[in-house]
Amino acid sequence: ATTIPNDYTVRRIESRDFEGAKTALAGLTIVGEISQKEFDSILNYWDSVLLPTGEQAYNTFVITVKDTERVAAIGTIFIEKKIIHNGGLVGHIEDIAVNSDFRGQKLGKILIDYLSSVGKQLGCYKTILDCDVKNVGFYEKCDYKEAGIEMQIRY
Amino acid sequence: ATTIPNDYTVRRIESRDFEGAKTALAGLTIVGEISQKEFDSILNYWDSVLLPTGEQAYNTFVITVKDTERVAAIGTIFIEKKIIHNGGLVGHIEDIAVNSDFRGQKLGKILIDYLSSVGKQLGCYKTILDCDVKNVGFYEKCDYKEAGIEMQIRY
Ligand SMILES: CC(=O)N[C@@H]1[C@@H](O)[C@H](O)[C@@H](COP(=O)(O)O)O[C@@H]1O
Ligand SMILES: CC(=O)N[C@@H]1[C@@H](O)[C@H](O)[C@@H](COP(=O)(O)O)O[C@@H]1O
Repeated sequence: ATTIPNDYTVRRIESRDFEGAKTALAGLTIVGEISQKEFDSILNYWDSVLLPTGEQAYNTFVITVKDTERVAAIGTIFIEKKIIHNGGLVGHIEDIAVNSDFRGQKLGKILIDYLSSVGKQLGCYKTILDCDVKNVGFYEKCDYKEAGIEMQIRY
Repeated sequence: ATTIPNDYTVRRIESRDFEGAKTALAGLTIVGEISQKEFDSILNYWDSVLLPTGEQAYNTFVITVKDTERVAAIGTIFIEKKIIHNGGLVGHIEDIAVNSDFRGQKLGKILIDYLSSVGKQLGCYKTILDCDVKNVGFYEKCDYKEAGIEMQIRY
């Protein structure tokens, strides 16, 4: 696994990441007009959702600059409980974003490797994610393989 | 939307669907040696996971034969809470299976239409699913469109 540069750390998302998380995620898609209070209530909700083992189902991590606490990258793995595979668990990696000021330092790969290892530690039999065709090569470098087609309906 | 044949109903999964659910899901993938007790504890776990609105995050439905209660089809929509899209919700359709004795009656489409409408009612901005290339045509008939590539890592 690629190692994290000395001046960055990976940790769980916190209330103070409000602005940094929004800025990073705005590079991925529409974030909207969410307030600090709404942000905190999402984090509280996520903390409340537990797996049968008592561990957290939502696991959102940020890579931050040690000195300034700026959010360089963000990503989530949430864990789904199934009947199949002996009541197995599946990890879903979602909402991966690297702030454009922090590109070219392999932070995306470091984050995916980290989230994949969280899925393994929590006992998942696999972790999956959906991405644009143009990002397949990046995820292959993170040891992911093509598994199928993502289909969507919008409301 | 395709209407359900007179002799079938759609309802939430229950404890008595243990054998029927396993049989249907065995047509999709490995189910394993799960006991009635383990099955019940998965259903109880699912019931315990609530959205911020208080509604259920896991929604597993079966199509059963009215007379015999046999499980003809099974499928899940579980709901993910995000930061993006104004703290939006996304529906994930998972573990769709039609028992081979009940093919050719459009039960698959009826189930997907039903699960998609559950996602809409719960306030999702979209519902997504991953499928094999060979099932893309079926999901297109259910109003889904190709959105990306599913990638996986197995542990
Ligand atoms: C691996 C990864 O980060 N995939 C993301 C997904 O997690 C995110 O939710 C979606 C937002 O797109 P949307 O705004 O069209 O829903 O984009 C990508 O598919
Ligand atoms: C729409 C649908 O039903 N997709 C299913 C998915 O929900 C299921 O979990 C997986 C099991 O495959 P696995 O045994 O290889 O994990 O197969 C398909 O991708």
